[in-house]
Amino acid sequence: MNAPSRSLDNASGHRRHLLGIAGMARAEIVALLDLADGYVEVNRAATKKSNLLSGRTVINVFFETSTRTRTSFELAGKRLGADVINMEIAWSSIKKGETLIDTAMTLNAMHPDVLVVRAPDSGAVKLLSEKVNCAVVNAGDGSHEHPTQALLDALTIRRRKRRLEGLRVAICGDVAHSRVARSNIHLLNTLGAEVRVIAPPTLLPGGIEKMGVRAFTDMPKGLEGCDIVMMLRLQTERMQGSYVPSIREYFRFYGLDYEKLANAKPDALIMHPGPMNRGVEIDTVVADDIDRSVIREQVEMGVAVRMAVLDSLTRAFDSSLKAGGSA
Amino acid sequence: MNAPSRSLDNASGHRRHLLGIAGMARAEIVALLDLADGYVEVNRAATKKSNLLSGRTVINVFFETSTRTRTSFELAGKRLGADVINMEIAWSSIKKGETLIDTAMTLNAMHPDVLVVRAPDSGAVKLLSEKVNCAVVNAGDGSHEHPTQALLDALTIRRRKRRLEGLRVAICGDVAHSRVARSNIHLLNTLGAEVRVIAPPTLLPGGIEKMGVRAFTDMPKGLEGCDIVMMLRLQTERMQGSYVPSIREYFRFYGLDYEKLANAKPDALIMHPGPMNRGVEIDTVVADDIDRSVIREQVEMGVAVRMAVLDSLTRAFDSSLKAGGSA
Amino acid sequence: MNAPSRSLDNASGHRRHLLGIAGMARAEIVALLDLADGYVEVNRAATKKSNLLSGRTVINVFFETSTRTRTSFELAGKRLGADVINMEIAWSSIKKGETLIDTAMTLNAMHPDVLVVRAPDSGAVKLLSEKVNCAVVNAGDGSHEHPTQALLDALTIRRRKRRLEGLRVAICGDVAHSRVARSNIHLLNTLGAEVRVIAPPTLLPGGIEKMGVRAFTDMPKGLEGCDIVMMLRLQTERMQGSYVPSIREYFRFYGLDYEKLANAKPDALIMHPGPMNRGVEIDTVVADDIDRSVIREQVEMGVAVRMAVLDSLTRAFDSSLKAGGSA
Repeated sequence: MNAPSRSLDNASGHRRHLLGIAGMARAEIVALLDLADGYVEVNRAATKKSNLLSGRTVINVFFETSTRTRTSFELAGKRLGADVINMEIAWSSIKKGETLIDTAMTLNAMHPDVLVVRAPDSGAVKLLSEKVNCAVVNAGDGSHEHPTQALLDALTIRRRKRRLEGLRVAICGDVAHSRVARSNIHLLNTLGAEVRVIAPPTLLPGGIEKMGVRAFTDMPKGLEGCDIVMMLRLQTERMQGSYVPSIREYFRFYGLDYEKLANAKPDALIMHPGPMNRGVEIDTVVADDIDRSVIREQVEMGVAVRMAVLDSLTRAFDSSLKAGGSA
Repeated sequence: MNAPSRSLDNASGHRRHLLGIAGMARAEIVALLDLADGYVEVNRAATKKSNLLSGRTVINVFFETSTRTRTSFELAGKRLGADVINMEIAWSSIKKGETLIDTAMTLNAMHPDVLVVRAPDSGAVKLLSEKVNCAVVNAGDGSHEHPTQALLDALTIRRRKRRLEGLRVAICGDVAHSRVARSNIHLLNTLGAEVRVIAPPTLLPGGIEKMGVRAFTDMPKGLEGCDIVMMLRLQTERMQGSYVPSIREYFRFYGLDYEKLANAKPDALIMHPGPMNRGVEIDTVVADDIDRSVIREQVEMGVAVRMAVLDSLTRAFDSSLKAGGSA
Repeated sequence: MNAPSRSLDNASGHRRHLLGIAGMARAEIVALLDLADGYVEVNRAATKKSNLLSGRTVINVFFETSTRTRTSFELAGKRLGADVINMEIAWSSIKKGETLIDTAMTLNAMHPDVLVVRAPDSGAVKLLSEKVNCAVVNAGDGSHEHPTQALLDALTIRRRKRRLEGLRVAICGDVAHSRVARSNIHLLNTLGAEVRVIAPPTLLPGGIEKMGVRAFTDMPKGLEGCDIVMMLRLQTERMQGSYVPSIREYFRFYGLDYEKLANAKPDALIMHPGPMNRGVEIDTVVADDIDRSVIREQVEMGVAVRMAVLDSLTRAFDSSLKAGGSA
């Protein structure tokens, strides 16, 4: 790593946490993808078990329910032989800053090796990570980052297209509320892809171009020549008090159907982080396109990527202890 | 297996799923009961562990809460050494057929070996099983089937009576809403028992005789000469909008007390799938009858039967892969 | 053990259950603390795994939600290699005595080795323990006892002060609703500490002195010369219909701040069972006092103590079976 990073690193140069893609070096990302590639094969075997993390403790701390992501991390931990504990804690019970820290310190005292944390507020996972001496994985914090989603998306693309560099990727839909978009923009830029975002004006964050993307409000235009079409879930639950588009209107202008898709390359891949709102941001036939939709592959890659992350962070943490890094 | 079966079988002749008892051949049922017999002893030992399913993944997907059944399957999977994941998904979140299939496909992409599925709608588990390439166990779907309950009931009877053939079995109570009744009727008929159902007219499905049973609305008459008295839970929660009997009246005519029980054979066994409504469908003293009530044994047999099912389906699936069966 | 004990013991002289501290002999408590001391080191190692309870089943049966205590027991069981199952059962579903017993008998039929039970009613865990033939651990029942909390508090103190005998300990705050206070009073008295309780008159149970403590309503006076200051959580949720103190007033007279703490010994330890109400029963700066607050250590000791309890009860149960003790 050349540049100082906002994600915490330790004295020995190893990453202690995975809080976001921002600040990760190209080599680090590639190393994780390479490691994950191996785990794809492990998961496809009849016996999907390693004892790599035997005697280690992974705690899933979810301040926001997400059965799918929690299950993916739980499977990843268990297939590595770790003891996995699930905790669902209502965010409403975390009233003050101290209380999140109390929760962090309490968990820390139980000697976990990795805390996998999902929280509804941006920055909450980082705050928590600063108080513990184990590895922390951000499993999605507010509209900030969801790094393992970006990694699994990258793995899916790389296995299909054999590269990320030079690909033109469109991230489409509710960009404003999307931590998935944010993590993907960082990762794709770092790995040399050309990133476009396509959204209605109300769901396009001001100044998004500063993140190194080209922004479009006209979907057919934005899709021109794209290799990858990443759709985002319309997160109406995060739109309290603000303008909520009508579903019919939204689908007409920003739902992915074959007509709009025709603007992308003929072999463009269709992606979605799930769960899909069929008929809202994506036409149901397009979602199930056998040749081009890789939505199920994304889920499969998710388990492999999370195994790679748990494996890598645990080993990095061990060597940081040996190197006398602060923990 | 001689007859084509509605439960899916694969090219190599092995059963891939356990969706229901209907369509299962006598030999298949007997083989599962024999296998379960061995697991009864495993569970009674101090160390209750096999590594048979080490490296395998069992996911409990419950669209309806059932702590008891989920725990029984979880124990079964863990004692076989499998990684067991619990998912509770609100059925209300599954609005359209596609969404159940999306859930199925998402789970499938995580490479489980067995999905254990409970759903409030009849047929939902079969629909899900058609979309995945792993084994599926129906842990109860609507008022359709609950095959492991029928298997555990059969195991309990067989161990006590040394046979099923020729026994007279009365299934009593809320037959209309009971998947337990349906699965038991199929199993008991296939294994040569004589099956009677006893219910108030409002809870007796029309045409039930076509399933090969004799129907009674007079409980003392129905119980005459019975070897086995299976009580059903009164499922008032499934009676929205229809006639709900008064508890006092129901107990008077259809609750099992010693007076009515006197019509059965003196050594008749008393069974109940649990949880019991004491004082509703069964008198509390009868439920606890030390000699004749086998209600706790049913729970014990449940874990053994589920171990046999997980064991058998996993092995069948493996050999189907070797035989080139579609998966 | 010399005296007959209300906690159940078996024919071979081994304790089958851990229902409370009341009735435990000094030697028993010391043996558990000694065993726990070893587990502290296990938990601090990189690989925190023993196979001591491999093939054993621990079921956490929580009739009251407590993520923190459940997690501590779950970790303890898993690090010992046991299969751990979590069950949350709404207390509202347990309407009659028979139904709690039904739940107990159902669980018992699944052949668990240890049931860890939390219940909102005092005595419920003992009732349940009388119906099963496995070990039962009380993880908190109503305002009765919470024995593992008292053990972890004792371990924390012993490791810091090298002894318990002769120490002056103040238990402060909502004594009336506190099972933690009750278990600690029993344990500290048995091990020869001098126990004081400090509470507002409305939260001081009548006749508390009969438990062998000195009661104070004046906090500064009560804290005089204390080696240990144990704060209790103000449990307003248990005060339905009765007088609930104002937070501001409560903190002024019974919240631990440096001014009041000055009455205790200069090296007095500050303890709290968590979760803390910062600014209610404890000042936030005092809670985080680096030298004197041992609140995080208490959490750490909790996992070690629970490992010792699970280990010890399982072995005791095994030898009771060999000795032909009733089970």
